[in-house]
Amino acid sequence: MKIDGKNYRTIWLNPDDSSVVQAIDQRFLPYRLVIEDLRTVQEVAVCIKEMHIRGAGLIGATAGYGMFIAAIHAPRNSPEAFMKSIIADGEILKATRPTAVNLEWGVHRQIDAMQVENDIEEKIKAAREMAQMIADEDADFCRRIGEHGVRIIEEISHRKKGDTVNVLTHCNAGWLAFVDYGTATAPIYAAFDRGMKVHVWVDETRPRNQGARLTAWELSQHGVPNTLIVDNAGGHLMQHGMVDMVITGTDRTTYTGDVANKIGTYLKALAAKDNDIPFYVALPSSTFDWKMQDGVKEIPVEERDATEVKYIEGLLGKDIKPVLLTTEHGHAANYGFDVTPARLITGLITERGICAASAEGVLGLYPEKRQQ
Amino acid sequence: MKIDGKNYRTIWLNPDDSSVVQAIDQRFLPYRLVIEDLRTVQEVAVCIKEMHIRGAGLIGATAGYGMFIAAIHAPRNSPEAFMKSIIADGEILKATRPTAVNLEWGVHRQIDAMQVENDIEEKIKAAREMAQMIADEDADFCRRIGEHGVRIIEEISHRKKGDTVNVLTHCNAGWLAFVDYGTATAPIYAAFDRGMKVHVWVDETRPRNQGARLTAWELSQHGVPNTLIVDNAGGHLMQHGMVDMVITGTDRTTYTGDVANKIGTYLKALAAKDNDIPFYVALPSSTFDWKMQDGVKEIPVEERDATEVKYIEGLLGKDIKPVLLTTEHGHAANYGFDVTPARLITGLITERGICAASAEGVLGLYPEKRQQ
Repeated sequence: MKIDGKNYRTIWLNPDDSSVVQAIDQRFLPYRLVIEDLRTVQEVAVCIKEMHIRGAGLIGATAGYGMFIAAIHAPRNSPEAFMKSIIADGEILKATRPTAVNLEWGVHRQIDAMQVENDIEEKIKAAREMAQMIADEDADFCRRIGEHGVRIIEEISHRKKGDTVNVLTHCNAGWLAFVDYGTATAPIYAAFDRGMKVHVWVDETRPRNQGARLTAWELSQHGVPNTLIVDNAGGHLMQHGMVDMVITGTDRTTYTGDVANKIGTYLKALAAKDNDIPFYVALPSSTFDWKMQDGVKEIPVEERDATEVKYIEGLLGKDIKPVLLTTEHGHAANYGFDVTPARLITGLITERGICAASAEGVLGLYPEKRQQ
Repeated sequence: MKIDGKNYRTIWLNPDDSSVVQAIDQRFLPYRLVIEDLRTVQEVAVCIKEMHIRGAGLIGATAGYGMFIAAIHAPRNSPEAFMKSIIADGEILKATRPTAVNLEWGVHRQIDAMQVENDIEEKIKAAREMAQMIADEDADFCRRIGEHGVRIIEEISHRKKGDTVNVLTHCNAGWLAFVDYGTATAPIYAAFDRGMKVHVWVDETRPRNQGARLTAWELSQHGVPNTLIVDNAGGHLMQHGMVDMVITGTDRTTYTGDVANKIGTYLKALAAKDNDIPFYVALPSSTFDWKMQDGVKEIPVEERDATEVKYIEGLLGKDIKPVLLTTEHGHAANYGFDVTPARLITGLITERGICAASAEGVLGLYPEKRQQ
């Protein structure tokens, strides 16, 4: 999508030197646009671990590019030594964020791609193509989510006789969390690019404020009108007819349609239901959990460090500084996400189309999963 | 309630010099306890306007004490000149926060009290007594709210065989918003003081973070175990049996039971309903609106300055500093409160007892209002 009028992805190979991966270092957003050069596996590992980049899709793509960098620098004396080095580097990358499914998946796709080639040069070439393919696939899945989801916005726009469609979103399931387009934002960008009037209410999304820092920024850069609100405000807006639909992303979705997403999503879904406002979740099918049946009971919710609640980072003068929001010795708890039960969800927007948030709906779109 | 083991009110006459009012300057909480001396009407006006003190009950009490200070300094050449000065000072105080009902009410109770006396010395004496009475009444109403509300906690404690009762609260309807005890906190303090095991989940309450800055602090100072959470977390806690009841305060309550309170209250009420958790609102009867029937439709919601959303204040080193949370030029909206419909409220805890959130319930406790 656009930054300062120019098209970007979140990660790419430097066109002047394809041994260098470049990525937007999101720690400095929205205050400064910093592009980071990644030349070694160690640098890629730090980039993932220290959250210069984040988001399921982007983590997967970064793993893919990271493994290409591993291939460039692996010893070339024998295919065995080469693959041994590759596998060791894969372990380094996988250890950076052990719970990120896409990370492991990106690493293993690369190992598999290299293993089928005999020649070392061919292995490196395969790694480069696979890195590109993982990134392209991610962008393409998001683009297709946009193609399907835009029909919902179009319909509301039509019903409102072309008047502005107000969409509320939580956290950042934008292009900054993927390679391009995003998931929750893909239908919004598609609507905007087709000339529909659309406006987005952006939840700031405490504690890490991904809405205030990333979503508001990326929408503004692409030109999409948006208004930042505190996480407390959505219910009031919905009560007063100021929200036409809600779209969020998801970290994990059971095949029965329960959605784990950033903490607070469940509260917005309740308000949407109470005010008869459609609540959609956008996701690539890689996010489905094909085994779990009851999200609230089965999905483990990560408890993160309390300092994320007690402190917040913001800009003071020219520096990004953390300030203490409460007493230094006070207790705080920090639950990473919550689970929104399927009964509150109007539909799931996937790369294959839109379906009901139910086993019937999901398996209807993914019939090959019925046997499992 | 207690600070560092010593009993305090939020405002009082200096025992060594009763021409000086003293109040806790809440702008510095929870980082520093600052007691402010108020010697002139101008100082009282700044104290209210710049929010050194806040909260309906405390604003009313401060108006009362402010008018006593006005009386001390009014010209004594004639009762007419005295009252003219008093009325002018009352206008100054009323202008500090024009929407605060208790402010106007405090000022007018004082004017009425002084008007019935002929002698200037008697007027001043009446003003002093009335200031004390307004403060005592406020404390007494809150204490009675605690007496009634504690029975709910007691019952849950009994059902849990003495195990910890987990209460969730939003914003600060604590003693810092009143003269003593608070409203939402009064039953909690009463339970704690009677030796029940109680723990409070404190919503930080963006945008102004009254939960993180005031509620967490006042509970901790009194010794009540509490845990700070982001406003997004309550739903998750309720889904997992970690909340036994919710108590909030209110800015205005229709006699039909609809509750206007700090933005975000409605979302917590929805989650409580969805999880079958009792949701109570504690209030002195002065907060009832005896005319409005439909809170969502009729109660106007103040839109405040967007800078409260875009910036947040916290401690950096030894200084309280505001930091920018998003881009400088981004749009933000800031709605002060929302309305929770009566259907989501288990009961109202008033100084007269607990009643259903309905016209029948409220008028049952306040039968003298039926005629109006």
